[in-house]
Amino acid sequence: MELIVKDMDIATGGTLVVILNEEDAGRLDLHPLDRVKIGKGRRIETAIVDIAESSKAVPPGKIGLFEEVLDSLNVRHGSRVSLSVAHKPLSLDYIRKKLEGHILNKQEIDQIVWDIVHNKLSQIEMTYFVAASYVHALTPQETYLLTKAIASHGDTLKFNHGPIVDKHCIGGIPGNRTTMVLVPLVAAAGLTIPKTSSRSITSPAGTADTMEVLASVSFSARKMKTIVQKLNGCIVWGGAINLAPADDKIIQVEKPLGIDAESQLLASIMAKKQSVSSTHLLIDIPVGNHAKVKSRKGALHLKKEFEILAKKLGKRIKVLITDGSQPIGNGIGPALEARDVLWVLRRHEKRPLDLEKKCLRMAAEVFKLCGIKNPSQKAKELLDSGAAYRKMQQIIRAQGGNPSILPEDIPLGKFVYTQHASKGGRIHAIHNSPVSHIARIAGAPDDKGAGVYLHVHKGSVVKRGDKLFTLYAENRSKLAYARDMLRQLKMLDY
Amino acid sequence: MELIVKDMDIATGGTLVVILNEEDAGRLDLHPLDRVKIGKGRRIETAIVDIAESSKAVPPGKIGLFEEVLDSLNVRHGSRVSLSVAHKPLSLDYIRKKLEGHILNKQEIDQIVWDIVHNKLSQIEMTYFVAASYVHALTPQETYLLTKAIASHGDTLKFNHGPIVDKHCIGGIPGNRTTMVLVPLVAAAGLTIPKTSSRSITSPAGTADTMEVLASVSFSARKMKTIVQKLNGCIVWGGAINLAPADDKIIQVEKPLGIDAESQLLASIMAKKQSVSSTHLLIDIPVGNHAKVKSRKGALHLKKEFEILAKKLGKRIKVLITDGSQPIGNGIGPALEARDVLWVLRRHEKRPLDLEKKCLRMAAEVFKLCGIKNPSQKAKELLDSGAAYRKMQQIIRAQGGNPSILPEDIPLGKFVYTQHASKGGRIHAIHNSPVSHIARIAGAPDDKGAGVYLHVHKGSVVKRGDKLFTLYAENRSKLAYARDMLRQLKMLDY
Repeated sequence: MELIVKDMDIATGGTLVVILNEEDAGRLDLHPLDRVKIGKGRRIETAIVDIAESSKAVPPGKIGLFEEVLDSLNVRHGSRVSLSVAHKPLSLDYIRKKLEGHILNKQEIDQIVWDIVHNKLSQIEMTYFVAASYVHALTPQETYLLTKAIASHGDTLKFNHGPIVDKHCIGGIPGNRTTMVLVPLVAAAGLTIPKTSSRSITSPAGTADTMEVLASVSFSARKMKTIVQKLNGCIVWGGAINLAPADDKIIQVEKPLGIDAESQLLASIMAKKQSVSSTHLLIDIPVGNHAKVKSRKGALHLKKEFEILAKKLGKRIKVLITDGSQPIGNGIGPALEARDVLWVLRRHEKRPLDLEKKCLRMAAEVFKLCGIKNPSQKAKELLDSGAAYRKMQQIIRAQGGNPSILPEDIPLGKFVYTQHASKGGRIHAIHNSPVSHIARIAGAPDDKGAGVYLHVHKGSVVKRGDKLFTLYAENRSKLAYARDMLRQLKMLDY
Repeated sequence: MELIVKDMDIATGGTLVVILNEEDAGRLDLHPLDRVKIGKGRRIETAIVDIAESSKAVPPGKIGLFEEVLDSLNVRHGSRVSLSVAHKPLSLDYIRKKLEGHILNKQEIDQIVWDIVHNKLSQIEMTYFVAASYVHALTPQETYLLTKAIASHGDTLKFNHGPIVDKHCIGGIPGNRTTMVLVPLVAAAGLTIPKTSSRSITSPAGTADTMEVLASVSFSARKMKTIVQKLNGCIVWGGAINLAPADDKIIQVEKPLGIDAESQLLASIMAKKQSVSSTHLLIDIPVGNHAKVKSRKGALHLKKEFEILAKKLGKRIKVLITDGSQPIGNGIGPALEARDVLWVLRRHEKRPLDLEKKCLRMAAEVFKLCGIKNPSQKAKELLDSGAAYRKMQQIIRAQGGNPSILPEDIPLGKFVYTQHASKGGRIHAIHNSPVSHIARIAGAPDDKGAGVYLHVHKGSVVKRGDKLFTLYAENRSKLAYARDMLRQLKMLDY
C-alpha cells in the first residue's frame, strides 16, 4: 500500500509510531500496536500502528509520521511511502516468558535489549518487562547477561593502561558532589578515571549540571578519550555519548510507580561502568529515610548483589555504606555545589568538611583497591598539596572552561532570602526531600545560580537570629514560589 | 498558576493528559506523569502531565488540552484556566502492593477501579496492575471484589421478575452466532434475557455487528429496559450502555502482550452479567487449537473458577465445554451470519445444522437451570413451532428493524469469488484463524455484506470441482486483497 506522509509536527521522544486512518488500517487488518514496515527507496523502518478514527488527524490515503520516523526514513510532508505488515517483535514472546516466571537465555535478553534500544517496543510492552523482572527477580546470570546486553548495544570506550577506575552513588542525597573532588584526586594519583555523569532528573543538580558551571560537559566519545588519555580523568555528561542507551528507556517506565527492580538497577549501573571498560569500582550507598536505600539491611543486601555481579564481570569492587540522613556539603544547586567543590580543592576556610571527609575516605578506598600503599595518607597529601586542585584546573581547561575561576566569583542567583532562627536550639534533622524540592522550585538545576545554601548541619547549635539557610533564585517570581513553599515544607527541625 | 488553553485537536481516547511547556512545568517542579488539577470556574479536573520541550507544540504560558479535558471543563481554545499540583492517585500504592504479592482489600480494589473508570491512570500504570494480577493471580475473594467494583462503577439494570438469564461465550470461533437464536428461544419460553453483546475487535463479526444487519443495536439503558419488559429479551450493543466501563480499559492494555490474566477475564465477564442483574448464567467455553481455550484441561479449570465466582455472587451457573475446532455455521461476516440465524429460526433447508444443534443444547441447559421440565423437548418445540422466530420478529421490530425481511433478501457483497476443490477428498480441518483473517480482509465486519461462506465442514467429502467456499466483498480491491491472502493462508485441509 502507498501512502502520502503527513508531518505530525511532534516528537514522541522514543517509540516509533505511525498513525493510519481507520479505513487504510482496515484494509490491511491492522490494529493499534500492530507493527508495520514503512519504506522509502532503500530505507525501511518498522513502527507501531496507532489508528485515527476521524479524518481530521489523518485522512484516508495519508500516514501520520512523527519526527523520529521522518528522520529515520529521510522523508517529509507530502512524500510517498510504502506500507506493509510486519511481524510483532520476537521479544514480546520473551517478555511473556519472563512474566510467566521462566528464566531467559542470552539470545532472548539480547533481543529484548535490541528492541528497546531501537524503539521497537511500546511503553506498555516495556512496562511488562519491568514488571516481570520486578516480580520474578532476575537470577545473577540473567542480571549479568542483561548488563552485557545493555553495555554492548551502545558505544564502548577502551583505554590503553589500567587500572580504569569508576564510581557510582545510589542517589537521593542533595549536595553529594563527591565525583568532582574524587576524579581529580584519583587522576592526580596516576590512575585512569573516565567519568561520565548524569544530569538531574528529580534532584536539584546532577554532577553534569554542576560541572557545567565550570566547563563544558558535552563531548563525543572520541574527544572524551583524548582528554582522559592526556589527563587521566574527565567529568563529562553521559547523555552526550551513546553509552548504554537502553538504560534510560527502561528508567522511563520505572518512574511512574517508583518501581526499583533491583536486578535492573544493578544491570543499569554496571552496564554504564562496563561501557567505559572500568576495572576497579567504588560504589557509594547512602542510607537514610529520604535516601533511595532506607535501611542498613537493604544496603547490605544490595552490596552483596553488586559484589556478585562485579565478580562475574571480572571487576574489582568496593561498596561503601554511608550516612544519607542529611544533605552533604552546604550548597544545593549547580553553582552553589560547584563553589563548595572548589572550596574543598582550594582548602578554603569555608569548605564543607563533611564533603571533604567523605571524598578523602572514598579516594583512600579507591587507592587501596588499586594496591596503592598508605591510601589515606596519599589521599590527604594529594588534596593538601594542591595536586588535586591543579588536576581539576587541567580538566576544566581541557573541557573548555576557565581554570582560574575563583569559587567566590561563581555567579549566584541575584534574588536572595535568608531564614534566621526564631529561637535557640540544636538542629535535630535536615530533611533531604524538602531541601531538594525547594531548591528546584527556586530554579535549580536549569537556573544554575538557584538553590539553597545551608548555614547549619545536623548537630549545629543555633541562637535566636542565627542564619539557618539562604535561598537563591534568578528571578523574583521563583524566589516567591520557593518562599511560599517554605510554609508547607519543613526543611529542618530544631 | 494561570494558563491559556491551546486546543490540541486530538482525542486521546482515554487517559486525561495535559501538555505543559517545560518552563511552566519547571516552575511547579512538575515531571511527566505527575498529576495536576485544572480548574475553570467551579469545574475541576485532575489530569496527567506531559511536557513539551519545544515551544512549537505548547509555548510557555499555554496548556495543551485534548478533547476529553476540553469537554470535561467546558473550555475552548483561548480560555484561561488555573493549574495546581495534585497528588498521585492512591491506587498507585495499591498497584505496587499487588505487584509485591500482597492481597488487596475492598477499599483498595474499589479505588483502583474508580481511577481506571475516571481515566486517572496512565497506560503504564494500568499495565502494572494487569501484570501484577497476572503474576500474582487474584484470590477468589479479590476476583469477587473486582467483579463487584467493575459492575458498580457503571450503570446497573434491574428487572422486576426473575429468573434473569444471561449467557457468555469465551470467544475465538468464527460464525458462532448462538446468541441470536438463543435469545428468542429463551424469551419465547417466558424467561427474561436482557442480552448485551459486543462488537468485533479482532473477529469478522461480533453479535452486535450481526444483529445490526437486521435492526438497530444502540439503545440507552432505559430504552433497553422497556424492550425487555415487553418482550422478555433484546439483543443490543453493550458499548452504547455504560455497563462495566472499566473492563474495556483493562482489555486495552492486555492486548499488546496477549495477556489473559484469568482472574481478570472472570471479573470482566461476570461484571457485565452483574450489571444486568442476571440470576442464571450459561457459559460456553469452546476448546480448540485456534480457540481462546486450547485444552480440555484448561477449560475444566476455567469452569471451576466460574462456578466458584458465580456462587459468591449468588448466581446459578452452567458451564458448557464445546467443540471449538472449526467455525460454527456456514457464514462468516455480519450479513452471512445474520442469514444463517434467520434460516435456523425459519427452519429453512439451507440452515446450518451445527449451529442449530448447539443452540438447542444451550437452550435446553438454560431451561434445566431455570427448572423448566423436559428442557430439550421444550427447546425443540419452541424452534419448530415458529415461536422463537416470531419472538425474534418482535425483537427486530422493537429494535427498529424490518421484521419481515427474508434471509435471502439480506444484501451480500457484490464482488464474489468461489473456490472449487482441485481434487477429491475428505475435509480434515477448517482453520479458525485463517478463515477469520480472510473474512476481515474482505471487509468484515465494517462492510456488513463481506465475509466467507463455507460450503463444507470438517468431515465433508468433496469431488473435484465442488465448491469449497465463497468470498464476498463490497468492492473490487478488497476482494483482490482477500484472494491474494489465500495464497499465504490455508483455510482448510483435504
